[in-house]
Amino acid sequence: MLNLKSYADLIEDELNNIQLPNSPIELYDPITYFLQIGGKRIRPILTLLAAELFSLEKTNVIPQALAIEIFHNFTLIHDDIMDLAPLRRNQLTVHEKWDNNVAILTGDALMIIAYQHLGRIKLEFLPEAFESFNKTALEVCEGQQMDMDFETRNDVTIHEYIEMIRLKTSVLLGAALHLGAVVSKASASDKEALRVFGENIGIAFQIQDDILDLYADPSKFGKQIGGDVIANKKTILQLTAITKANSEQIDIINQLQSEENLDFKISRTKELFDHLNVKHDCVELMEKHYTIALNALESINVSQKNKEPLVELAKFLITRDL
Amino acid sequence: MLNLKSYADLIEDELNNIQLPNSPIELYDPITYFLQIGGKRIRPILTLLAAELFSLEKTNVIPQALAIEIFHNFTLIHDDIMDLAPLRRNQLTVHEKWDNNVAILTGDALMIIAYQHLGRIKLEFLPEAFESFNKTALEVCEGQQMDMDFETRNDVTIHEYIEMIRLKTSVLLGAALHLGAVVSKASASDKEALRVFGENIGIAFQIQDDILDLYADPSKFGKQIGGDVIANKKTILQLTAITKANSEQIDIINQLQSEENLDFKISRTKELFDHLNVKHDCVELMEKHYTIALNALESINVSQKNKEPLVELAKFLITRDL
Repeated sequence: MLNLKSYADLIEDELNNIQLPNSPIELYDPITYFLQIGGKRIRPILTLLAAELFSLEKTNVIPQALAIEIFHNFTLIHDDIMDLAPLRRNQLTVHEKWDNNVAILTGDALMIIAYQHLGRIKLEFLPEAFESFNKTALEVCEGQQMDMDFETRNDVTIHEYIEMIRLKTSVLLGAALHLGAVVSKASASDKEALRVFGENIGIAFQIQDDILDLYADPSKFGKQIGGDVIANKKTILQLTAITKANSEQIDIINQLQSEENLDFKISRTKELFDHLNVKHDCVELMEKHYTIALNALESINVSQKNKEPLVELAKFLITRDL
Repeated sequence: MLNLKSYADLIEDELNNIQLPNSPIELYDPITYFLQIGGKRIRPILTLLAAELFSLEKTNVIPQALAIEIFHNFTLIHDDIMDLAPLRRNQLTVHEKWDNNVAILTGDALMIIAYQHLGRIKLEFLPEAFESFNKTALEVCEGQQMDMDFETRNDVTIHEYIEMIRLKTSVLLGAALHLGAVVSKASASDKEALRVFGENIGIAFQIQDDILDLYADPSKFGKQIGGDVIANKKTILQLTAITKANSEQIDIINQLQSEENLDFKISRTKELFDHLNVKHDCVELMEKHYTIALNALESINVSQKNKEPLVELAKFLITRDL
């Protein structure tokens, strides 16, 4: 049985042990604050599990696990500015608690600190890790830009949407695993399969996240049901609905965008989506990526026993009462 | 005779040859725009000159020269957001031409692209280069934070101010030289001396920049005389004046902060500064750092002839009609 907490605790300890400079405190206080408000630490846990998949001691991959988690935190701080988000993990975001300038600079510094940890990787593995990290980091920026562009576009396709979530969130899961495997003597194809596993688990997770917005059990869902509908967000549900709708239904969807009675907006949207069988299609798409992920893991040349923790983590991430 | 243009042209060519991804164009267009609006390319030129100081062909250090210049451009884009600057090199800043979110993300991507170029350094030199680059990059963030903090403080000391300009701008000149020297077989002390040269040339240059605000020849100065005075900026002139002023003069300085007749504000400030012999003290401080720089260069174990281009560049940077 995978004990996620023990892995998360290891990461938490390592994050707490990071020695930051003392001054200027106006720069380092927000960094300490943000690193300590938590999170599930899924990405660095993936890095640790990737090492163990290839029978390596997980302490060998702490530098890259921290680099990935710190980079992720940098993206959250800058994304929160762009999204005008007041809260993150139920705490004030950096730009809310301080201001935009502090949040910009804190994010910048965190990215550099991520690279400092990457630089602690043994020299023989550094070029592969560095290249993988840089490529992924740039892809994450591309995904964020696509996400912003989509806000003002009315012709986003499902294909483009999947590519956006792949870049914005999934490639980092793939890189987290790849960086954990870098220190192994695994074949290039095994490492690539592991990356494919991570990327597709990430896509499946994001699709599920979109589905849960309307179809979660309210008693178990931490957020308001229909939040994406209220915000007119282009989710996989919305894009699938548009693909399947006839012109009359398209009109209804468009009218609902400006509906001010929010309960009606949500219930009418759900009714329409149900009529169009949208949830079914989205679950199918999610399962497609989940299956690609598991098949990729299956193909890796290690024992079944070594694969179990990753299979378990994948299940944990995807099974959330759909 | 040092032909700066030939070095700048080489950097310009290399920057133009960078192959950026095609999409999303909303991310890469601003990057292309900003890299092409120019600049003196002093930092990457220092990297090339550092290689030549140790009799190495300058083409050996193109990756780190580009990394330094691209990193510098990232800092400009983010600083321009924080400073609400509408123009950079007489062109619209990225946040003005596009918006803040684009400028945040463009800057982030540029930093990653800088690391991609750093990653092209030969493996044997990578750890030293990577560590130097990371350390410097974080110091630049610290300097920017200090600069922002100073805006709301009334007790900034000359010592703190010099430390701020050292971090915000000078360490990057030092790193530019150090990264050029990394591929040489130079001793650690020679490389360190070169870094000290760059850092102190940078400090001297910034002090000179502050002095020129009030004491430049208007016919040769590209900016408005007294712009820093109008903006109540804490410059080395202002901080030196406060150190030397008696309580009555302090009162005058404080009153002038809110003076609305700008011509009077500038002329009265200058009169007071002249009375306190402020320019003399600041020139002395500038010359102190200039001398530290030249002495550090002098100590390096290569021929006098090899040092000449750097001596010439130092003179070029510092001698601007004081």
